[in-house]
Amino acid sequence: MSLLYLLDLIGTAAFAASGAWAGIRRRMDLLGVLVLGVVTATGGGTLRDILLGDVPPFSFKDETYLYISIAVSLVVFFWHRRMEFIQHPLLYFDAVGLGTFVVIGTSKALAFETGFLVAVVLGVMTATAGGVIRDVLSNQVPLILRKEVYASACIAGAVLLVLLHRLDAPPTLAALSAAVVVIAVRLLAIHFNWALPRAKE
Amino acid sequence: MSLLYLLDLIGTAAFAASGAWAGIRRRMDLLGVLVLGVVTATGGGTLRDILLGDVPPFSFKDETYLYISIAVSLVVFFWHRRMEFIQHPLLYFDAVGLGTFVVIGTSKALAFETGFLVAVVLGVMTATAGGVIRDVLSNQVPLILRKEVYASACIAGAVLLVLLHRLDAPPTLAALSAAVVVIAVRLLAIHFNWALPRAKE
Amino acid sequence: MSLLYLLDLIGTAAFAASGAWAGIRRRMDLLGVLVLGVVTATGGGTLRDILLGDVPPFSFKDETYLYISIAVSLVVFFWHRRMEFIQHPLLYFDAVGLGTFVVIGTSKALAFETGFLVAVVLGVMTATAGGVIRDVLSNQVPLILRKEVYASACIAGAVLLVLLHRLDAPPTLAALSAAVVVIAVRLLAIHFNWALPRAKE
Repeated sequence: MSLLYLLDLIGTAAFAASGAWAGIRRRMDLLGVLVLGVVTATGGGTLRDILLGDVPPFSFKDETYLYISIAVSLVVFFWHRRMEFIQHPLLYFDAVGLGTFVVIGTSKALAFETGFLVAVVLGVMTATAGGVIRDVLSNQVPLILRKEVYASACIAGAVLLVLLHRLDAPPTLAALSAAVVVIAVRLLAIHFNWALPRAKE
Repeated sequence: MSLLYLLDLIGTAAFAASGAWAGIRRRMDLLGVLVLGVVTATGGGTLRDILLGDVPPFSFKDETYLYISIAVSLVVFFWHRRMEFIQHPLLYFDAVGLGTFVVIGTSKALAFETGFLVAVVLGVMTATAGGVIRDVLSNQVPLILRKEVYASACIAGAVLLVLLHRLDAPPTLAALSAAVVVIAVRLLAIHFNWALPRAKE
Repeated sequence: MSLLYLLDLIGTAAFAASGAWAGIRRRMDLLGVLVLGVVTATGGGTLRDILLGDVPPFSFKDETYLYISIAVSLVVFFWHRRMEFIQHPLLYFDAVGLGTFVVIGTSKALAFETGFLVAVVLGVMTATAGGVIRDVLSNQVPLILRKEVYASACIAGAVLLVLLHRLDAPPTLAALSAAVVVIAVRLLAIHFNWALPRAKE
């Protein structure tokens, strides 16, 4: 099992946990919590694959992603009150998932020979669209559209990866640099409470 | 015309009626009622076909589904006040549609040789995703995520169908058993007001 | 550069501006405004292409659409207070975009040899689905489902185009007639404040 695959599964578990928790906060039933967990973890990559025409999507070809998402969501559903202590460490796993998803999504777009901008869009979408679907299903304006640097961290990493790819940098080095940038920006943003400018009314 | 096709059309009409009624309750105009009717009736199968890569989807290849959905939505729009008496029987047609859609969706996934879990997910999605899209367009948290055994009936039927398929049961018998399970669980759930457990806050 | 392509880009810019403005009214941050602008401008055609199985979609094959949408959204984000004067003229550009998108979507469906109804649905979807996604992401019931003749103008134009196509009318004449009908109905609807009937509760 490659390191990238392992990181991918860690990210999937972290995203599923955040989705399941959102379902619990919205007072959903067991099924709602499962759906939010699965959709948050696999929705971004699935939408990317639909747009690239690579269907059935990754989440259907390797059922590991679905099994992990469902298992994590069940754990969160039944033991979430004993698991408050995990909320803070979860932010770190979530950041790892963010970096990994951006690298996987951008690399896949480049392998499909999309243009510069589309590769960046698909990298960011892989990491963020699951959360957008989670928020839409929860009947809320998606968090990333309102006040997070979340997506900006992804954009920075995706742009760096496409640039390094154009410069023929070694793929592993490029992927690692991009992931580190995403994770670093994300954690710094949490630490310093950064936010993007908002339009003045 | 096969029995399955006939049941499929009955389910389409019942789902379209429920979608159109949702539009009326939300005070939408004629177009909104039509869109909700069509989307509720055909959205689940269409999403399934997109995910399986079988596009154009069933709803575009055989326009009968669109014509029936539009006709039913028009009838509901113009005569809904004289049709209150149909609300109760509609629950039974809706249950028939639910069972039929689960069988069609799961069988199609199996024909595409997806894994166990994906076949169940696609069977449930075929029967429920139209209602999810209806609720999202109505700006509400999807009903099935909050308090219905609706989806659980679908899961039970889809799991049974995949198991019988694995055991090489005769396809017609397997399909019939799965549909009966979905319909029975659904009607019992309505009768006894069953609900899934909800997370304790 | 053909006239149709030029009109397509004008429509894209107008739709992106309306999406970006919606993001500003909802107090989104820079990223949210960009996403709403891009999605409003390219979402309809992208959904059409997914449903037709023509992926990657037009918006990924020719990045001009993305660059224009992003540029317009940035301009609206930073200078929207100095641009109130453009709100009224924007309605005209928006109507041009509406007519162009209907013609492009319906023609593409006919080229894929869909049925009559599907061609109309895809023409209307090309022009309106971006706005629907914009409203869903803004956590609002889509405007076109509630009180606009917006979609009716599109339906009229799409039906006319399919009919003229069936009658073997010259393609350019058919496209022009359909676009003019959409634009005229749309502008008349704004001027006379037309609305579709709503269901009586």
